[in-house]
Amino acid sequence: VSELRHNRFWTLRQYPRGLPQPDDFALAEARLGEPQPGQVCVRVLYLSMDPAPRLRMDPKARLGPPLRLGDMVIGRGAGVVEHSNTPQFRPGDYVVGELGWQEHAVVAGKDLRRVDRRLGALSTHLGLLASSGLTAYFALRNCAAAREGEVVVVSAAAGSVGLAACQIALALGCRVVAIAHGAAQARFLRQQLKLAVVDDLEAAALGPALDAALPGPVDVFLDSVGGELHNQVMERINVAARAVLYGFISAYNASAGQEPEYGRIYQLIKKRAHLMGFLLADHEAHVPLARQALSAWMREGRLQAFESITAGFELVPRAFAAMFGEAEPGKHLVRIGEEPTDQQSDTECTK
Amino acid sequence: VSELRHNRFWTLRQYPRGLPQPDDFALAEARLGEPQPGQVCVRVLYLSMDPAPRLRMDPKARLGPPLRLGDMVIGRGAGVVEHSNTPQFRPGDYVVGELGWQEHAVVAGKDLRRVDRRLGALSTHLGLLASSGLTAYFALRNCAAAREGEVVVVSAAAGSVGLAACQIALALGCRVVAIAHGAAQARFLRQQLKLAVVDDLEAAALGPALDAALPGPVDVFLDSVGGELHNQVMERINVAARAVLYGFISAYNASAGQEPEYGRIYQLIKKRAHLMGFLLADHEAHVPLARQALSAWMREGRLQAFESITAGFELVPRAFAAMFGEAEPGKHLVRIGEEPTDQQSDTECTK
Repeated sequence: VSELRHNRFWTLRQYPRGLPQPDDFALAEARLGEPQPGQVCVRVLYLSMDPAPRLRMDPKARLGPPLRLGDMVIGRGAGVVEHSNTPQFRPGDYVVGELGWQEHAVVAGKDLRRVDRRLGALSTHLGLLASSGLTAYFALRNCAAAREGEVVVVSAAAGSVGLAACQIALALGCRVVAIAHGAAQARFLRQQLKLAVVDDLEAAALGPALDAALPGPVDVFLDSVGGELHNQVMERINVAARAVLYGFISAYNASAGQEPEYGRIYQLIKKRAHLMGFLLADHEAHVPLARQALSAWMREGRLQAFESITAGFELVPRAFAAMFGEAEPGKHLVRIGEEPTDQQSDTECTK
Repeated sequence: VSELRHNRFWTLRQYPRGLPQPDDFALAEARLGEPQPGQVCVRVLYLSMDPAPRLRMDPKARLGPPLRLGDMVIGRGAGVVEHSNTPQFRPGDYVVGELGWQEHAVVAGKDLRRVDRRLGALSTHLGLLASSGLTAYFALRNCAAAREGEVVVVSAAAGSVGLAACQIALALGCRVVAIAHGAAQARFLRQQLKLAVVDDLEAAALGPALDAALPGPVDVFLDSVGGELHNQVMERINVAARAVLYGFISAYNASAGQEPEYGRIYQLIKKRAHLMGFLLADHEAHVPLARQALSAWMREGRLQAFESITAGFELVPRAFAAMFGEAEPGKHLVRIGEEPTDQQSDTECTK
């Protein structure tokens, strides 16, 4: 163990208010820690710029613990191993991991991933071959199960996930509508990917712009933005649409506690939960079997038909009104006739 | 064709404002229409009281066309066939269908369903064996796939769907927390089904009441209420929770256009759509294959790595800030070092 080198790193100087500013960060320098057994020293070559760490730059962080002032800023990076105290890695290996905003990183080998540069250039192991591309891939294929011909809307389409998603959706044969943030992004998407594009900065005309761009109702919506844009797209979904939420950029720069609208969306993302609409008509094919199962449970006494029955045709409106609010428990019915005994039943009607 | 009989029916006299009142309806009488070929005359025995028709009692109806003033009120019923002009039905057959609020119904045979009273009493064919029970059954089993031991929360638990859902969830071995609307319903649910119960009329203490009643985070939420209750339960969901929305009673009695909060939920129900949160970590097992697929698409030129690369460690904060708002398209990276040529790479670090 010889002369220790100095290492430069960026720290959080103050919590950003709204959009992060360069002044929110301060450059610092310190001796590079010495790698312990199991650790690796990495020379950082690329730092990945991702919105997610912004969420922890808030004293009331919503995803993970808050960064403290003076802490090194977190962030993923790619680099080359210079020294290794673990047999997992050798000098010269290319790796990615949570390296932080610094020139050299001393990290546990178990927290690094060796990259195969035959799959793509080193930088793509932070983007297309890492979370950006994988998020787009899994969200479209595994979660939304986007199919050929379906209409796919991608928000933040000029972002790294968005660009991957647009291209993957095209590769899957989908009809893609990209939502850009500003005219420059819109131009880029039109020119580079030949996509139908809506610019969400033209917010006043967002609805009509969507109507003009969409070739039909939206089957799949990949959203990382939320807010009014989210609602406008959801107004235009198709039956059995799938909306996958993988971020909510529109709220990232709000301070904690100021984004009431996002409570539910945030919970959905954090818990990878499903919120699904239900209409009985979709289950028609399974009704006969379900009815048999319910009937069997009734016979076994596991299922009771709690019924709240009003008698008399004159009382129908009252029974209807009584169903709302703090109503009698159970199924509400009005009996307006007596069941015939099995012999008689057909004499009353016109013929 | 002989003497025609008189038939009584209820009409919509005025559109309800908020909760329906008996005065919103008027009793009317007319000659019963003569059944045409294919039609059936049914003597109505039970009328089913359901919240859904309330949605059409609004000039700007949100689900289906609005009822017009003077129209007979819609509603499902059960009855006995008195005369049939179709071979599908015979006098004495028991049937259910959209019969309307009237004593006799002349309807097309194709719009009726014959019921098998061996499966349950006639009234249960409007409740447990009809949409109420089936909704609970499919929502729990097919949509939420509720499993033994899971925590299931049911809103409007004293309603017909709710009571069925609570019992079915118990039969499936779930731990059920019922949400009642008022003390009487709460008492009923505790006494009849021995359930943990939260009363949503005690709104101020809804969160703490949920915390006290829940044996753990919520795995499955069957909701037909929406609003603040919905949000409070969603605050307490488990990872991979499933929330099934099959109604939004809290907004049924709002006039159209006055329920902004429900736009999204309403769309989810109307379109049977899925809104799902996504975290990449859940897909770890499939990453290697996905990376191969992405790499292959890159080689084929179907997937381009659009990268926006800033060079220089000093510029990291600026690059981070520039990622928000109207950013450069593509993956944002900062290059802070040069990739070594393949021979050299390990001499710089401490050792």
